[in-house]
Amino acid sequence: MAQEKDALMERTLDPVDAAGWAELRALAHRMVDGAFYHIVGRREQPVWQKPSDAVRKAIGGEEVPRAGEGAAAAYESFLNNVLPYAIGNTHPRFWGWVMGGGDAVGMMAEMLAAAMNPNVGGFDDSATLVEEQVVRWMAELMGMPAGTSGVLMSGGTMANLVGLNVGRFARSGFDVRGEGMRGGPELRVYCSTETHSWLKKSMELMGMGRSSLHAVGVDAIHRMKIDELKAAIAADRAAGLKPLCAVATAGTVNTGAVDDLTVIADICQAEGMWFHVDGAFGAPAYWSEKLRPIVRGMERADSLAFDLHKWGYMPYDIGCVLVRDAEAHKAAFASGASYLTAMDRGPVADGLRFADRNVELSRGFRALKAWMSLKAHGVDALTALIEQNVEQARYLVQLIEQSDALELAAEAPLNIVCFRYRVANDDENKEILMRLQESGLAVPSGTVISGRFAIRVAHTNHRTRREDFDLLVEAVERIGREVVGR
Amino acid sequence: MAQEKDALMERTLDPVDAAGWAELRALAHRMVDGAFYHIVGRREQPVWQKPSDAVRKAIGGEEVPRAGEGAAAAYESFLNNVLPYAIGNTHPRFWGWVMGGGDAVGMMAEMLAAAMNPNVGGFDDSATLVEEQVVRWMAELMGMPAGTSGVLMSGGTMANLVGLNVGRFARSGFDVRGEGMRGGPELRVYCSTETHSWLKKSMELMGMGRSSLHAVGVDAIHRMKIDELKAAIAADRAAGLKPLCAVATAGTVNTGAVDDLTVIADICQAEGMWFHVDGAFGAPAYWSEKLRPIVRGMERADSLAFDLHKWGYMPYDIGCVLVRDAEAHKAAFASGASYLTAMDRGPVADGLRFADRNVELSRGFRALKAWMSLKAHGVDALTALIEQNVEQARYLVQLIEQSDALELAAEAPLNIVCFRYRVANDDENKEILMRLQESGLAVPSGTVISGRFAIRVAHTNHRTRREDFDLLVEAVERIGREVVGR
Repeated sequence: MAQEKDALMERTLDPVDAAGWAELRALAHRMVDGAFYHIVGRREQPVWQKPSDAVRKAIGGEEVPRAGEGAAAAYESFLNNVLPYAIGNTHPRFWGWVMGGGDAVGMMAEMLAAAMNPNVGGFDDSATLVEEQVVRWMAELMGMPAGTSGVLMSGGTMANLVGLNVGRFARSGFDVRGEGMRGGPELRVYCSTETHSWLKKSMELMGMGRSSLHAVGVDAIHRMKIDELKAAIAADRAAGLKPLCAVATAGTVNTGAVDDLTVIADICQAEGMWFHVDGAFGAPAYWSEKLRPIVRGMERADSLAFDLHKWGYMPYDIGCVLVRDAEAHKAAFASGASYLTAMDRGPVADGLRFADRNVELSRGFRALKAWMSLKAHGVDALTALIEQNVEQARYLVQLIEQSDALELAAEAPLNIVCFRYRVANDDENKEILMRLQESGLAVPSGTVISGRFAIRVAHTNHRTRREDFDLLVEAVERIGREVVGR
Repeated sequence: MAQEKDALMERTLDPVDAAGWAELRALAHRMVDGAFYHIVGRREQPVWQKPSDAVRKAIGGEEVPRAGEGAAAAYESFLNNVLPYAIGNTHPRFWGWVMGGGDAVGMMAEMLAAAMNPNVGGFDDSATLVEEQVVRWMAELMGMPAGTSGVLMSGGTMANLVGLNVGRFARSGFDVRGEGMRGGPELRVYCSTETHSWLKKSMELMGMGRSSLHAVGVDAIHRMKIDELKAAIAADRAAGLKPLCAVATAGTVNTGAVDDLTVIADICQAEGMWFHVDGAFGAPAYWSEKLRPIVRGMERADSLAFDLHKWGYMPYDIGCVLVRDAEAHKAAFASGASYLTAMDRGPVADGLRFADRNVELSRGFRALKAWMSLKAHGVDALTALIEQNVEQARYLVQLIEQSDALELAAEAPLNIVCFRYRVANDDENKEILMRLQESGLAVPSGTVISGRFAIRVAHTNHRTRREDFDLLVEAVERIGREVVGR
């Protein structure tokens, strides 16, 4: 009896009775309707709108909520103050900073993942089986051999960091984990000047320092200069440094350029260096027979990193790193801990395999959205969209070439198109871009190509139609005339 | 006309018409019902059950899905093969490895976050405002000053890594980002032997090496020995090394011990060292007036890391790092990139503030579940549950003390209770634990305390009632008799 009373008095975050559950479930159904209403009507909304001062105050001015207002009120705040002021990548005319749009299957998978709520450290559970399967599928789709290891990460930066760290452990020639970077010669990493900022940040975090990174120049189409790479390796060897790794890019963030992966793979092989490929957005091009020649050589990577929330169209966040040598992968990260003590049976019988492949121990079930998306849509459908994005980018290139007012700012080999309003200077082109973004009609981003500002369309959007690029070009021409006066 | 035809021919992952949307929305509603049915009935299900061979084959034996089977079929696979074989932390009798159970508000917030699908790099959007607000609330709740910087991470390991890296940059005395660990004297980091494995892994990843980590011994209640810490710092200084940082723990993973944070803060202050606190699960104890004295001194941290998917009861994944010195935080991670070119207005006008506070650039909207959970439930409700967990742990301690068959394996100052079947040896206690886990009745985990195996209850479960601990103790007594024969 005392126990019954205790139980009644004990709290939980769950509703306390059937009526409470029914109320919360009804709210959840309203949320689903709200989410679908939002997605279905997204095309008719502004791509992006700046949060108003009232919204800033409503969100940023709220005291710590000591007493709860209930889930319905919290949802109301979300609907009023949060949802309308998104960065905009679910919209058909968002092409900024290489972001995918996500989809409704992935969205619901996120809900299911949270219902199940596993920590996917690598227990003997179904979430681990699902992630292993997604990694196997990815290895096959990327042309890497059976037995390739891998792990899903939050995104390209983390996936790249993990790959590079495996390479450091595997090819340094000294005990990096034990002794750190002071335990051997200076290790050099090579990339091109077009490499994404993840590499500098990773070199810094890894205690290697930016000074150990040699950024090789690029040719006219923004690919790493091979002769310069070879010369740098030779010079570093002569100076007593140890060439560790070449980082090639399959789809640079600025222009979508793809380094000559086969040649760089050959060089790494000859030099005993680790071959890492950053395919953050470009790697899924490998799924397409048409596009595969562009990224050929990628499958020879010792480690390959890519995102699935970009050109895989899945909701944030999900990236992946694949490592050809599974033992090397584990050797770079595995650690024992007494509370993970070895057991013969039970949920932790096999250790925590994913914790042994990356720096994280707590890991959400991001694998579920990949598994459900791949199963529901099929890889062929995703691949057709990737091809469509490249065709649509070609279409945009044609529109720019046909326009007297616009000019291309760089080659557009894949799905990134950089252009300018021809008679505008850098400040004016920036102004055109900002007015376009503020109009809510479209959100490209900006970049600098060979020292000059450019408007950049990074197209990994499965909702875009060609007519959206017609609207973009018309808008840039119109705003350009307004800004420049001609 | 040609354009209309093109538009019709263009693909998308979205349903192509209203009927398709209606069908997908209906499925989403079924998913919500399924998720609620699962959570409401969770208590009646096994905590954990080993995936059968059939399940392993169904998940692990599937070919790459080239053609899509549709979302309904993918959901069916999830229901049959995935959901029943979870690690179990949503169950009222799961107390393994310090995992929280999540809740339905957080679950729905994950769905809403994916509907909106922002990359929360720190654009001028509402998601950024929400994350900034969650960080501000956390700083206030943890007793840190206004102006404290912070960022939400995937979990404790990543949050701790970020904090330590800020400390390295701020206190090394040389250009770590530029020159790496070879650019100055050997930097030493101090912790106790009870520190979580994140620190070794981070030292390795950061290129500092495990050899630069000095693990100080612990006293009888598993707290860092202060005299040993002082002696180690003095000896290292004398040897020409540079003491960089002391890492204190608020809630060790093995026993829930809390280091003497105030004294360690004093030492760091006197020595010019960075004071980092790993409060992965213990930090939220600070929210409670009753429990605050246990973790007092935590608020003096230069950097503080903690999880919200543990003692914050939110779904995976969400951790947080707070950094007192906002400039130091930014100085350790900020980087410019041409495609993030400076703009006066538009969505990237203020740069990417969260990318400047951690290694990730792509970041999901995990802030939303924190924001909605805090608003819906209120901090007082969460705090009451934290207190309830500690009271329930006290109750379990009493049960163990009252049992002739059981004995405590360590002090239980907070919410972690380690115990043994008294007359069983290590292998037998392991066997008891494994049989208990396999029974599906309860999932504690195991650990090693002072060289001996122990069954470990890590209690951050908002669904547990005292009666669940009655069941646990009865089961361990029964299984113990079966295993040992008395």
